[in-house]
Amino acid sequence: MIDAISFENGTLGYLDQRFLPLKEEYVKTVSHREAIEAIKTLAVRGAPLIGVAAGYTVILGLNSYSGSKEDFPAYFNRLIADVEASRPTAVNLFFATARMKEIFERRFESSSLEELFRDMREAARKIHDNEIENCENMARLGVELIREDLAETLETRKLTVLTHCNTGTLATGGSGTALGVIKQAWREGLIEKVITAESRPLLQGLRLTAWELEKENIPFFSISDSSSAFLMQKGMIDFGIVGADRIAANGDTANKIGTCAHAISAYHHNLPFYIAAPVSTIDITIGDGTEIPIEERDADELRTIFGTRVATPTTPVINYAFDVTPGTFIRGIVTDKKAVVGNYEEELKKLFC
Amino acid sequence: MIDAISFENGTLGYLDQRFLPLKEEYVKTVSHREAIEAIKTLAVRGAPLIGVAAGYTVILGLNSYSGSKEDFPAYFNRLIADVEASRPTAVNLFFATARMKEIFERRFESSSLEELFRDMREAARKIHDNEIENCENMARLGVELIREDLAETLETRKLTVLTHCNTGTLATGGSGTALGVIKQAWREGLIEKVITAESRPLLQGLRLTAWELEKENIPFFSISDSSSAFLMQKGMIDFGIVGADRIAANGDTANKIGTCAHAISAYHHNLPFYIAAPVSTIDITIGDGTEIPIEERDADELRTIFGTRVATPTTPVINYAFDVTPGTFIRGIVTDKKAVVGNYEEELKKLFC
Repeated sequence: MIDAISFENGTLGYLDQRFLPLKEEYVKTVSHREAIEAIKTLAVRGAPLIGVAAGYTVILGLNSYSGSKEDFPAYFNRLIADVEASRPTAVNLFFATARMKEIFERRFESSSLEELFRDMREAARKIHDNEIENCENMARLGVELIREDLAETLETRKLTVLTHCNTGTLATGGSGTALGVIKQAWREGLIEKVITAESRPLLQGLRLTAWELEKENIPFFSISDSSSAFLMQKGMIDFGIVGADRIAANGDTANKIGTCAHAISAYHHNLPFYIAAPVSTIDITIGDGTEIPIEERDADELRTIFGTRVATPTTPVINYAFDVTPGTFIRGIVTDKKAVVGNYEEELKKLFC
Repeated sequence: MIDAISFENGTLGYLDQRFLPLKEEYVKTVSHREAIEAIKTLAVRGAPLIGVAAGYTVILGLNSYSGSKEDFPAYFNRLIADVEASRPTAVNLFFATARMKEIFERRFESSSLEELFRDMREAARKIHDNEIENCENMARLGVELIREDLAETLETRKLTVLTHCNTGTLATGGSGTALGVIKQAWREGLIEKVITAESRPLLQGLRLTAWELEKENIPFFSISDSSSAFLMQKGMIDFGIVGADRIAANGDTANKIGTCAHAISAYHHNLPFYIAAPVSTIDITIGDGTEIPIEERDADELRTIFGTRVATPTTPVINYAFDVTPGTFIRGIVTDKKAVVGNYEEELKKLFC
């Protein structure tokens, strides 16, 4: 079992993901400064996992406080600011700190520091438990949908599934979003093999998803991203499932660059392509994908690979980190509440009622 | 101007492509052993360019022969065998040696060594001249087709074109196949910008095509392969053009892995996608793409990048070097004889009449 993150007896344990799969380094720390550094240096990564780590990091900060109640607000504000500065673009990190700030505001006056800390400890644990529970729900609902959609194929053989980037334990703290569904489907005997697209430029598919599947003894192989269309043509893929960074009200989905290309090819080869993401990923205030801002990242992500230069420093590059897959190419969106199949405009907003 | 290959005063000049774009090394040699080594080590690469180099390598071998006419056949056979062993899978190399063997068989008895060598020298030059001429024809016919197909857009603005892998001077010895068309279109003022997909796993697009365009002062930028679908969605691409390794009678085209994914996305976004390749690439004895054998290459091409390991040595990988794009996704096939637009089943075989 992969222990991407844990918190026991006041000690945060995490897997340093920077050198995976070449080096597995499990770190234990009681220092919130070390934990902040781990988030900053991407030793801990993956949107939901950062949220979990941020919650625990605040707790480490509380544990090392030995001052008076009077001095605590200043300490707390500095602690929160430090945690928030560790990865300023990570939304889940701010969900976690917002939760802590809310408890502080609601409880500081009326409680002892001991009571306040206990509430915050419970909140941090709950952020983690929620992630685990969300993953379990998605896994269950996703497998139900796959059983239904691919019933005919499943009558005669197991399935081969394509996935992209890393959406597993290494990213979520739970079993994963898309990878959580895949793992559950494998446990239930539905999956023959997993194909992990390498996910240029940072190769999370080749490095992290491959590592995670190997750890779990799930059969897989990796491919270059642009091989997926050809493998579909050759009948080597039965369906695709990936995670999401943000989903618009009409089902248009922003996810790691490369997702849209896989989805178009799947659509063309008449193969179902699914998204698995918690309801919190859906932003119903956004009408469609054109409104989702897409981060352009450093050109050196393509020009150098693990420190090895492959192109000249002046080679012009456009490096979109994400793309938007039109809802029309998505067979179903598996959330922790429900698996929504088509008609996203109507159905997604019902998840918020 | 890029001098990928030259032959003057008995000296072969070539650009060592192994370290491009980080290091440009032009080599001059009169030794056929050095030339064979250059082909063997991929210092010289690209199917047509290998054919040109092989022809000149035979000439270097002749130039260093100082024996009798009687002893020549044994020397010649060894020379040809050595050249052929330098890259046993390169079809163009065998076209070149076959041409030399044919001259030998036809002329050896009736000619002096001097006359025989002169004929072979002419043949080697002709292999090179033919490549240059083929590229010029494709460039002219390709630009005509683009002018026609994209006339409406060209009324208001210049075009942005997507290409894949390297199909330029570095691959052909002429101006290139697809890249030759692009260069000509740029010279005629039709092109705003070229997009070179990086072409995993060996990154010929990011490394070689980028370098070639920079040398020619043609504006461009590189992208990860799986970004193309998203750029099409954003209206950032007007058309695509790539080369071919082999074309079946129905227009199905084998080319560098990733081509099929670009073509499907182009089809979906209603953008023309062209192939540029000499008639010699078309194999009308092959009915459709399913009959084209596709090379699977070493998994380490994905697991290591320029000697840097990115995945464990045991990570399972499927690494198809090529894919097959169905003719139905190809708007036109530009050959050196004619640009064929659709109806490939009927039209391609006419090129051989």
